[in-house]
Amino acid sequence: MTRHASGRPTPALAALVLTLTAVVTSVAAEPPPPPPPGTMAAALAASRPEEWRRLDPTRTVYMDLDAGRVIVELAPTFAPKLYGNLRTLVSAGYFDGLSINRVQDNFVVQWGDADGKRAVPIAKTSPPEFERSWSADLAFTALPDGDVFAPQAGFVEGFPVAGDRAAGRIWMAHCYGALGVGRDNAADSGTGIELYAVIGHAPRQLDRNITVAGRVVQGMELLAALPRGSQAMGFYATAPERVTIRRVRFADAVPTAERTGLEALRTDSASFAAVVESRRNRRDGWYLKPAGRIDLCSVPLPVRRTAIASP
Amino acid sequence: MTRHASGRPTPALAALVLTLTAVVTSVAAEPPPPPPPGTMAAALAASRPEEWRRLDPTRTVYMDLDAGRVIVELAPTFAPKLYGNLRTLVSAGYFDGLSINRVQDNFVVQWGDADGKRAVPIAKTSPPEFERSWSADLAFTALPDGDVFAPQAGFVEGFPVAGDRAAGRIWMAHCYGALGVGRDNAADSGTGIELYAVIGHAPRQLDRNITVAGRVVQGMELLAALPRGSQAMGFYATAPERVTIRRVRFADAVPTAERTGLEALRTDSASFAAVVESRRNRRDGWYLKPAGRIDLCSVPLPVRRTAIASP
Repeated sequence: MTRHASGRPTPALAALVLTLTAVVTSVAAEPPPPPPPGTMAAALAASRPEEWRRLDPTRTVYMDLDAGRVIVELAPTFAPKLYGNLRTLVSAGYFDGLSINRVQDNFVVQWGDADGKRAVPIAKTSPPEFERSWSADLAFTALPDGDVFAPQAGFVEGFPVAGDRAAGRIWMAHCYGALGVGRDNAADSGTGIELYAVIGHAPRQLDRNITVAGRVVQGMELLAALPRGSQAMGFYATAPERVTIRRVRFADAVPTAERTGLEALRTDSASFAAVVESRRNRRDGWYLKPAGRIDLCSVPLPVRRTAIASP
Repeated sequence: MTRHASGRPTPALAALVLTLTAVVTSVAAEPPPPPPPGTMAAALAASRPEEWRRLDPTRTVYMDLDAGRVIVELAPTFAPKLYGNLRTLVSAGYFDGLSINRVQDNFVVQWGDADGKRAVPIAKTSPPEFERSWSADLAFTALPDGDVFAPQAGFVEGFPVAGDRAAGRIWMAHCYGALGVGRDNAADSGTGIELYAVIGHAPRQLDRNITVAGRVVQGMELLAALPRGSQAMGFYATAPERVTIRRVRFADAVPTAERTGLEALRTDSASFAAVVESRRNRRDGWYLKPAGRIDLCSVPLPVRRTAIASP
């Protein structure tokens, strides 16, 4: 690693500048020096354009806060009914002016209608989408190092997933940045009017107990840095503490000039496999003993800025 | 789970109010109803006084910020030289008035001398304490569900650890709240003048690459909610963004009346085993499908307030 400007040692890890939800800018003023072989930077530099996919604006949600924009990619392959609910809710402006009401350290940030007064344009129940069948058409990329919680772990369509192939079941995993659908005790009580994002160590015990509808691909730092609530489960004690949600829109409802162009590295690509390998065995100069292994929620899912396609 | 006051569904998990670093108050105004059998609350309610240990004031460090007090328990069993360095540094007032200079989302908060101008009362190098021998005198409590990164995982003296028993090696694990010792590329460059705390998903790739000196037992929410830095690796761009450290002291240097009385559930106790089981198989009403498994960094390490012993 490079020394910090002050010359003080740091825990370093230059490559970790690209964190789980980091955005890689695609334009540089000067050609940078080539990254060290075997690093994530080298894997990304060697990637081909066709290994990246533009985020589909019909599956991309912008949540605008005073502090900036949080961008979510939804996973209708795993939660199609929730996807439909969110299309209805967002199109109706349901979330606009609501607030983030709960921030529980090392767990979740949660938002919705704190006062429960807003009209809800969807049904009061929704079938649980906690897991789905492991059908042959799913492009599953396996991780090689196993998983404490499930027989299989890997990625489908850019999302971290776990599964039991023998039982024919697969589900979205609660990794950092996962977007979940709050529910009450009844399995069908999560409809999408209350949502949360994971901000701490992966709470995998939630897997198969609640619907994961997508993941935050940009702006996690805006959610994770919010003050923790002082009440039980991290709820804010008073209304003024709540964080206002200015507006929530699907990208396809936003004028092209106002969209945030993003593309994600395909998790079924050779370059993604190289990224995984670069993180299993860190070859950055700072590391003395590469782990040789990686867990599901430590794998970066690279997303970078791109131009906006004309509509 | 209990409904939120508004009647809105939540991702819930009443028992998770006791998070990894949560503090359990030991005095209640009214006798609470008995917690549901099999829950962590029930395990804690049934614990015996001798299963708790008061934090040793000679191993307990208070870092006072404007926002409140962060309390660290040090692990001289794993990092004895670093412990000695920190005794020297803290006694000399080294950290007083320095600052938190780096907050990298889903990774670490780091503090030290941003300007590198302060006199350092210890040597410029310190032998690495990345791992140690797995000697017979260590009271190791094994976790039953395996670990992606190491042959064994569990707890020693209240700290999450991983190890390779066959190779006779054991080390502190980078879980949420771990206190690490920043270093430059040289293995012996971490002396304790630059420290960090883990604020995201466990960066286990750091294990065996850097000295872990202890863990934060109270006040993690003060560190984890700090604004992320905009520069590479999360460094703050400007001096005013830095977060001032008012004062750092060992508890044994603090007048008794100003100490924070804390005790931790012994990780070699029957009640801790009951806590682990309660979290492997959640019996809170909200859960529909208990995981039946748990990973090292998801295990809560209960700490509660206690009276201060007379010196």
